[in-house]
Amino acid sequence: MNHVAALELIEALRDRGFKLALAESITGGALAAELVSVPGASKVLAGSVVAYDTNLKRDLLAVPASLLEQHGAVHPDVAVAMAEGAKRLMSKAIDELPSNVVGLATTGVAGPDQQDGVSVGTAFIAVTGLGAPESTVFEHRFLGDRNEIRSQCVAASIEHLLDLLRQ
Amino acid sequence: MNHVAALELIEALRDRGFKLALAESITGGALAAELVSVPGASKVLAGSVVAYDTNLKRDLLAVPASLLEQHGAVHPDVAVAMAEGAKRLMSKAIDELPSNVVGLATTGVAGPDQQDGVSVGTAFIAVTGLGAPESTVFEHRFLGDRNEIRSQCVAASIEHLLDLLRQ
Repeated sequence: MNHVAALELIEALRDRGFKLALAESITGGALAAELVSVPGASKVLAGSVVAYDTNLKRDLLAVPASLLEQHGAVHPDVAVAMAEGAKRLMSKAIDELPSNVVGLATTGVAGPDQQDGVSVGTAFIAVTGLGAPESTVFEHRFLGDRNEIRSQCVAASIEHLLDLLRQ
Repeated sequence: MNHVAALELIEALRDRGFKLALAESITGGALAAELVSVPGASKVLAGSVVAYDTNLKRDLLAVPASLLEQHGAVHPDVAVAMAEGAKRLMSKAIDELPSNVVGLATTGVAGPDQQDGVSVGTAFIAVTGLGAPESTVFEHRFLGDRNEIRSQCVAASIEHLLDLLRQ
């Protein structure tokens, strides 16, 4: 199921001439791994910054420290800043016009414990660089254990991006 | 199988007071994803730079352009430079002494096509920051399809790092 959707996403991005830049926290690399399971993924996936430690969100993805201090790492504004950070970082590295690069970020709580007062299963998926508004954030409350929550967040990320590409 | 090994690796790193910085190419985020499936992984895993596009290896991980031009992206020296780059980048970001950070990188050809004259299944796994010599590279020739090759490379990365930690 995920694999078919991943294939469709790679094709949809390629058809539109987009490159994809990921920033992953809750999905921990699983989203990138799902996409690279598709042969030819290298033509559209620039890469992923798995910013598991909060300080990497700040230093690598340039998420404002004030945002992290005020809200913690699981917040819609943090998701958007991560997506923007990945897009900026990678479009520069691969020497691509920012208008041709889509950024997608995931942040959330996979559990087993809540984090900064945010309950297990809460996740935000942000997409930036696809039309107007410039960024879109999706909020989810996933049920299940740590790996089920992560797996659902991978599937939801792919579906949301596909939906936006089809609009 | 992978999951038990991942659990052992997280525990071994925690016992030795190490943080782990990953740079992934052939494994495409699957190594980070395997490790974060272990609760408490956030205490040892800083993150992963999935440098799928070769230019990310150069710009994000500071792999010398001359190395990439001379050898392509699948070479033992590139693996070492990626591991060193991840270690340097993340130890700075998480404000940790470099001596407490282990870098691990994967690069290889998952197929279906060979790349720069390197055959499908060839992979290099480099570990830096664990005793002397400073860096160790393991070379593999994995058999199977794209996903089997990637999965074996994830398992081998975990096993090699566990072995080095136990020495």
